[in-house]
Amino acid sequence: MAVATTVNYVNHRCQRFSSANDNKNLRRVTAYFNDVAINDGDKRPNKSTRLAKSISNLLHLYIEKPSLRNFLQRDESDAVSQAEAKLETPTMSPKEDISRIWRDIHGGSDWESLLDPLHPLVRREIIKYGEFAQATYDAFDFDSFSEYCGSCLFNRRKLFEKLGLTKHGYDVSKYLYAMSQFEIPRWLEKSYVTDTWSKDSNWMGYVAVSDDVESRRIGRRDIVVSWRGTVLPSEWYEDMQQDLEPLGHGEAKVERGFLSIYKSKSISTRYNKKSASEQVMEEVKRLMTFYKEKGEQISLTITGHSLGGALALLNAYEAAMTFPTLPISVISFGAPRVGNIAFRDEMHHMSVKTLRVTIKQDLVPRMPGIVFNETLQKFDDLTGTLEWVYHHVGAELKLDVRASPFLKRGSNFIGIHHPETYLHLVDGYVSSTSSFRSDAKRDVALVNKYVDMLVNDLRIPPCWYQLSNKGLVSNKFGRWVRPKREPENIPSPIQEESYDL
Amino acid sequence: MAVATTVNYVNHRCQRFSSANDNKNLRRVTAYFNDVAINDGDKRPNKSTRLAKSISNLLHLYIEKPSLRNFLQRDESDAVSQAEAKLETPTMSPKEDISRIWRDIHGGSDWESLLDPLHPLVRREIIKYGEFAQATYDAFDFDSFSEYCGSCLFNRRKLFEKLGLTKHGYDVSKYLYAMSQFEIPRWLEKSYVTDTWSKDSNWMGYVAVSDDVESRRIGRRDIVVSWRGTVLPSEWYEDMQQDLEPLGHGEAKVERGFLSIYKSKSISTRYNKKSASEQVMEEVKRLMTFYKEKGEQISLTITGHSLGGALALLNAYEAAMTFPTLPISVISFGAPRVGNIAFRDEMHHMSVKTLRVTIKQDLVPRMPGIVFNETLQKFDDLTGTLEWVYHHVGAELKLDVRASPFLKRGSNFIGIHHPETYLHLVDGYVSSTSSFRSDAKRDVALVNKYVDMLVNDLRIPPCWYQLSNKGLVSNKFGRWVRPKREPENIPSPIQEESYDL
Repeated sequence: MAVATTVNYVNHRCQRFSSANDNKNLRRVTAYFNDVAINDGDKRPNKSTRLAKSISNLLHLYIEKPSLRNFLQRDESDAVSQAEAKLETPTMSPKEDISRIWRDIHGGSDWESLLDPLHPLVRREIIKYGEFAQATYDAFDFDSFSEYCGSCLFNRRKLFEKLGLTKHGYDVSKYLYAMSQFEIPRWLEKSYVTDTWSKDSNWMGYVAVSDDVESRRIGRRDIVVSWRGTVLPSEWYEDMQQDLEPLGHGEAKVERGFLSIYKSKSISTRYNKKSASEQVMEEVKRLMTFYKEKGEQISLTITGHSLGGALALLNAYEAAMTFPTLPISVISFGAPRVGNIAFRDEMHHMSVKTLRVTIKQDLVPRMPGIVFNETLQKFDDLTGTLEWVYHHVGAELKLDVRASPFLKRGSNFIGIHHPETYLHLVDGYVSSTSSFRSDAKRDVALVNKYVDMLVNDLRIPPCWYQLSNKGLVSNKFGRWVRPKREPENIPSPIQEESYDL
Repeated sequence: MAVATTVNYVNHRCQRFSSANDNKNLRRVTAYFNDVAINDGDKRPNKSTRLAKSISNLLHLYIEKPSLRNFLQRDESDAVSQAEAKLETPTMSPKEDISRIWRDIHGGSDWESLLDPLHPLVRREIIKYGEFAQATYDAFDFDSFSEYCGSCLFNRRKLFEKLGLTKHGYDVSKYLYAMSQFEIPRWLEKSYVTDTWSKDSNWMGYVAVSDDVESRRIGRRDIVVSWRGTVLPSEWYEDMQQDLEPLGHGEAKVERGFLSIYKSKSISTRYNKKSASEQVMEEVKRLMTFYKEKGEQISLTITGHSLGGALALLNAYEAAMTFPTLPISVISFGAPRVGNIAFRDEMHHMSVKTLRVTIKQDLVPRMPGIVFNETLQKFDDLTGTLEWVYHHVGAELKLDVRASPFLKRGSNFIGIHHPETYLHLVDGYVSSTSSFRSDAKRDVALVNKYVDMLVNDLRIPPCWYQLSNKGLVSNKFGRWVRPKREPENIPSPIQEESYDL
């Protein structure tokens, strides 16, 4: 039976997110919940039951059978006809004015009562930021035969246009590059070619800022930082258990590998004469100065998937230290744990609002604590030793792959971890006790862009996101050649500096 | 030291290939050899040495090290600059008039003295027929999410145009379909979709005929039959050891699985109310009648790779029985053994001329006799029990992957067996003792269409032959959908019948 719920709104005031409009916002937020149909006919397990079950699931992931109830929720043939019926419909929910409630959407009250059931406007914004995170994969040059391997395929002015993301109303103002002084296995994509655009650095994300129209809709000038992660969680996670390094002047410590990527620089490099940290902080400062002078309200939203989610937290920590009054939120997808309990407490103390989107079956958010060996296709549970060292920060939106009737059963670890799987599950999520949203609008086909997760009956081939002939073209003699990259899209350290507002 | 050789031409007369012009042809053939530079400075091992070495190579394929001499022949960096220098040059040797020597090129004298060194015009024709065989892969719908999986992507009028093969001057006159009454593992490509173009049959090849211009150049109207094979030699070869079945009225016997694909039909099917055998024989007869009435000289050339090469032999046997005076030749690539010694003798007796192109490191031509287990990545040598049952037919052009400086070292069984690897090695082959031809014209990039065989420095990505987004397109709502196949390319049993000359 579908019933409407009342929102148990906690009037949580904090430095970053307080607003005179809180009470009005409360009413608006509550009103939106009336649209959300949830199924509360089932008894929800209490916390300790869930913890026990979660550990048991973890250790028996391979033999875990979906319950009959889950099975009944998943009618695949129904899903197929549902997907077919939607082919001629828009792929996004309509944009609503959130100018008066944006603080709540960004965790002003720590998302209390906004996640379960999930508020439709929170969902919409999560997907927007998730697509900003996804963009770092879609535009990344993975081609190790290209001299631009590890760079972005397009220049920053073209990025959103090429990826169909202009609809979000943001402009990219700067690209971010990172290197690492430690050897971190497989985090850096490298070209086979000797004469390459950069020997040390990878494109690691970007800074973008909302345009005037979007800023009016969302009630402030929103600076977004999107950090690229790794599609394949691989051996490099093994490194993570090793060392915690101090951050700041207190007790806060974070994983050494993440910090190295965020902080490393070398004068002998082309793209990391400044560290990723310096690049992003300079740009945020520049944008803040510019829009503050215009008297605008500003927010900073940092997003990222996997490793990108870890970098987002480090970035948020630094930004909160530097700009004490700036509202800062992090929306991460499938991010591993990053730091110790003091790190978590400092983040909390500085009112950095963190929403961690996780999938129950995704192993990466359990890292460090789990070492996942891709090659052996097994994992070892190190919960006893590490779970109590590394701590997650903030609120959690916990998804379940079994909720979607569009997804295959089975343990496809890479597929489950993929950001498109996250976006699909967010789009269909109503609450922890109700089934997949039938009016979810996002294109289901996107899930299979890089993985094999969709049920066969949908007829979407796995890993379909690919260039014609891997970018080779036939020249006038009929020979297959690699075309030169368009000059405007060739990375150049000089070009990177000459951005304007 | 490069020297010119004299051709030891054996004036072998036979019913099918005799011609008043033999002596003239001899002189022309000899003349061409003067252009071929070969390296005869090395002593060639005698037959028994080679047999012993071959068996030893077979059993130690993984640990086989290329000899120093081979190593010296392979200068990869040189190969890379060679390939780069060729990017702006034609990809084919010029067409020469072969109207007076075509019988020799097609085995009139059993290719004696034409293969080592390889006559340039023989090479050119081998590549032409090899590209006809390759076309059956390039145009095959492998997409198991397509309702047309297992069919040809294009209708027969468009086939050569779509694949860039109109240059050869042939027109496709009929498509061939096959089914099998036996369960043969993995030979049939099947759609996941329930409502499919055919439940039982696969597109198995085509009949083509030379146009007027090409017919003048090659001295006769050439009917080509091209049989599709399997790219992946897989478990279905295991089946082959089982049974030999009688063919014709004599002692000739052939492997049951191949015969089943060639002969099976069922009235309840859409595409195999007639067997592949009946389809091809009817079409050859129709074309022969048509061109004989015009008083033209006619030849039949049957080609195929792997399984396709096996079908080519069965087809040639039947055609030779039916049309005793028709010159018939088979040019096969990486084909397994098909029949017993009586089959070989009958083929010989009927003057079917067979040129088997093989690669020393390819396991399939050793089958049956070798069971290759793809999954276990090992093979068992059954030479003792089966080599003396199954016999190869005809002459052999034996290639060596180690001869090409463009190819990676190592044991990539699938890559070595692939028809594009064959075409590359034929194109570069001069003789068994000389190095890869430096003026080979074929586009080296083609080798990597489906496999990973080219050295990295060439910067041709592996398996690059692919559609943009696997054929999905974004509709007006931004949803990724599978477009409908163009009506003219949708297979239809009725359409198949209505061919014209």
